[in-house]
Amino acid sequence: MNAYAELEQRFARLLTLGEVEAVMQWDTATIMSASAAASRAEQMALLQVLQQELLTAPDTEELLSRAGEAELEDWQRANLREMDRRYRHASAVPNDLVEAFARACSRCEHHWRTARAESDFAAISGQLEEVVSLVRQIARARGEALGLTPYEALLDEYEPGTHCADIDPHFDALAAWLPGFLEEAQAAQEARPAVLPVEGPFDVGAQRRLGEAMMKAVGFDFSRGRLDVSLHPFCGGNPDDIRITTRYATDDFASSLMGVLHESGHAMYERNLPADWRSQPVGKARGMAVHESQSLLIEMQACRSRAFLGFAAPHIREAFGGAGPAWEAENLYRRNIRVAPDFIRVDADEVTYPAHVLLRYRLEKALVGGELEVADLPAAWNEGFEGLLGLTPPDDRRGCLQDIHWFDGAFGYFPSYTLGAMLAAQLFAAADRALDDLSGALGRGDFAPLVAWLHDHVHQHGSRYTTPELVEVATGAPLSLDAYQAHLRARYIDAAR
Amino acid sequence: MNAYAELEQRFARLLTLGEVEAVMQWDTATIMSASAAASRAEQMALLQVLQQELLTAPDTEELLSRAGEAELEDWQRANLREMDRRYRHASAVPNDLVEAFARACSRCEHHWRTARAESDFAAISGQLEEVVSLVRQIARARGEALGLTPYEALLDEYEPGTHCADIDPHFDALAAWLPGFLEEAQAAQEARPAVLPVEGPFDVGAQRRLGEAMMKAVGFDFSRGRLDVSLHPFCGGNPDDIRITTRYATDDFASSLMGVLHESGHAMYERNLPADWRSQPVGKARGMAVHESQSLLIEMQACRSRAFLGFAAPHIREAFGGAGPAWEAENLYRRNIRVAPDFIRVDADEVTYPAHVLLRYRLEKALVGGELEVADLPAAWNEGFEGLLGLTPPDDRRGCLQDIHWFDGAFGYFPSYTLGAMLAAQLFAAADRALDDLSGALGRGDFAPLVAWLHDHVHQHGSRYTTPELVEVATGAPLSLDAYQAHLRARYIDAAR
Repeated sequence: MNAYAELEQRFARLLTLGEVEAVMQWDTATIMSASAAASRAEQMALLQVLQQELLTAPDTEELLSRAGEAELEDWQRANLREMDRRYRHASAVPNDLVEAFARACSRCEHHWRTARAESDFAAISGQLEEVVSLVRQIARARGEALGLTPYEALLDEYEPGTHCADIDPHFDALAAWLPGFLEEAQAAQEARPAVLPVEGPFDVGAQRRLGEAMMKAVGFDFSRGRLDVSLHPFCGGNPDDIRITTRYATDDFASSLMGVLHESGHAMYERNLPADWRSQPVGKARGMAVHESQSLLIEMQACRSRAFLGFAAPHIREAFGGAGPAWEAENLYRRNIRVAPDFIRVDADEVTYPAHVLLRYRLEKALVGGELEVADLPAAWNEGFEGLLGLTPPDDRRGCLQDIHWFDGAFGYFPSYTLGAMLAAQLFAAADRALDDLSGALGRGDFAPLVAWLHDHVHQHGSRYTTPELVEVATGAPLSLDAYQAHLRARYIDAAR
Repeated sequence: MNAYAELEQRFARLLTLGEVEAVMQWDTATIMSASAAASRAEQMALLQVLQQELLTAPDTEELLSRAGEAELEDWQRANLREMDRRYRHASAVPNDLVEAFARACSRCEHHWRTARAESDFAAISGQLEEVVSLVRQIARARGEALGLTPYEALLDEYEPGTHCADIDPHFDALAAWLPGFLEEAQAAQEARPAVLPVEGPFDVGAQRRLGEAMMKAVGFDFSRGRLDVSLHPFCGGNPDDIRITTRYATDDFASSLMGVLHESGHAMYERNLPADWRSQPVGKARGMAVHESQSLLIEMQACRSRAFLGFAAPHIREAFGGAGPAWEAENLYRRNIRVAPDFIRVDADEVTYPAHVLLRYRLEKALVGGELEVADLPAAWNEGFEGLLGLTPPDDRRGCLQDIHWFDGAFGYFPSYTLGAMLAAQLFAAADRALDDLSGALGRGDFAPLVAWLHDHVHQHGSRYTTPELVEVATGAPLSLDAYQAHLRARYIDAAR
């Protein structure tokens, strides 16, 4: 067997183990008894170790190098590039460092839960220091192997091939533009009639049925997937059995509804990935920003639009027996696009959300780079937050303790949220130009043209292109802030979409 | 690391993969979309291959032999014996034969579904011939490696260390005794008042709640397990998260109720296995007969007893709003122990069930041994069935086509059902002697003394002893028909329990 074919066989095994892991993760979040947590952790750790061993087998490097000299088709060449990238990430860090890091993260994350509840940064800062110290070592080792700065080496896991130089100009421009825009948006909001309250409680069964109906409109196929409940919503499973989860609040139907629509965007991407390459790295989603662009495109661009609310409002009224002006499409639309700066990222509106991300990006870059120490994090957080949103967190629970990411060792992930939002706007604008009356279709709950466009321009390419190449192929231009800012302006100043 | 410690580490990995497989099997049966069947088959096959590779690694044999020379404690020595057994089974058959067999079984089982529905033995006989031919090769290869006859080499996978010479005297005696006893039992039944019909339909939600309440009485802990629906009921998952399934018929509540009680017997065994040895072969259940003895002990010995019905009847009435003589404990008890020879094993009553097993045992032994050919199977089946139960199957759907086992390549499994029933009676009789008023406890729905006795005498031993040793340790005597026949006589002739 030639080197490339041998690698394909090895990666098929690796990715099939990943599929098993996906089912087990879903089970852990939705089904598993709490009593099984310890043994489940062993099971998941073994699946990880087996993948790591397959990836870093002694002959992988030589196979990759021999395969690189062979005659390959385009898709194979791209597949080899993705194999190589995965190998370099996995082999760059010594096993004992990986294990020490996993243990430190597990310990820190466990204690963070109490520290957050009690808003006690001092109680967790020692453990976070340990995590950060190990992250710096890992980032340095990976950076050397990949020819990247330490922070970029972490970022590269989520955003292959994206450098800080690709992000900084956009994020700096956004940081400069956002405070002024936020003021304008709030003034425009003040000038419009107040949003009428929509009164609950909202029956959970009715919420589920409404969510399922809206998922079907987007194109979710319940014969190839399902909707369940978990504490932290996600889209998991595998392309032929996609498993979305949500959680229901009886005093607010919109959080679950918008959540399942968001996850449906992820689901459409996973379902439409190139089936012929399912078991190979090139057949997988391109990266976190592209994945997030798909969920944000469906949730933010399509489903928070006035057009979609025209379709959804009668279904919402019927689900909860609502009547009167508060339940009219226009009020539900304006309810969905309220802007109000606040401390918690996961509750933030579309306009203030990027400010939360910008802050975290700057801080995590400084933490990894050694320009910021853990002891100085709370002060740096509060200062940065005030600069971006004009508010000072009253405690660390509503400040630097709020997100799990860093306490669980995830550095380099935050930029994907805002890169995804930018890309979602740029893709939606391109689809809108290409399609005949996209807004009209969404107003009829007809997502087929939009999803078909996404299939052709994004989904079917898997990881064939790098992210910048994919953005060019799909939209005809490199990633920029233009469409994103135009979208925010149209919606929040002009209330036009 | 010494050889034994290295083997422990390797088997911990192997058995953790088995735990992953158990969760995936549950998911396949209860949750998975049908659209994912093909990729799920790939995932399950990979988990199998990884276990096979771990087990038959080139140095396993040498490690086993070196470990055998070391100083070991009792449990370790027993663990080594179990490791060795697993290794010998796995390494005896060449990989290409294993693969050819897996493919032939998958094909045959697939077509059997249609052949059974159409009662068309000719349509499947060619594929069954292929399966039988490969089974004979596998059985010969294993038999040579294990020093057993070919059939015993298959049996050994389900009943470690059990030879045909251990089974045949019991089964021959049973075959001689059964027709006369059946006549007596039917005459006794005729002499009693007719069973009054209990009218449905029986609400599925009410059945589920009743089943859960009865499971809790047995000792099933819903914080460490759950009850779901699947086409073929089973007890799966892992000891800290045991997953029972059932199926509900709206015209009969007893099939699901007795089914969940049966699976609860399996669950108690799994839960009470020695936790310190969970990740080692010696920590696993002893074999299929012992496992089946636990489910049959709970279902047949305990829960079909008059004593238990005294406890259960008010719950049953309350679940379905039943009232009147048909819903009295005595009628429900007699309804549960009706005897009626019929063609289908899975619907058979306690008295005729062993006849179904005896027939299959004889036929599969002859098929594997080469004394019977597939072409002669239907005639041999019908003749044997008539000899044991006095009825001739009107077609092969109600004859040799009814069970999936052989068409899916499972030969050597059938004896476990009746060996389990015998052992259940012997264990129950021993518990009854040892405990103060077991019948009274069951009449109050108090299973704690019985389950504690089973924990001490069976469950906690895992695979520390061979099956014959375990029977002696638990009951003070080798396995015999005495308790089983005494039980059947007491219940079906005297209606005394």
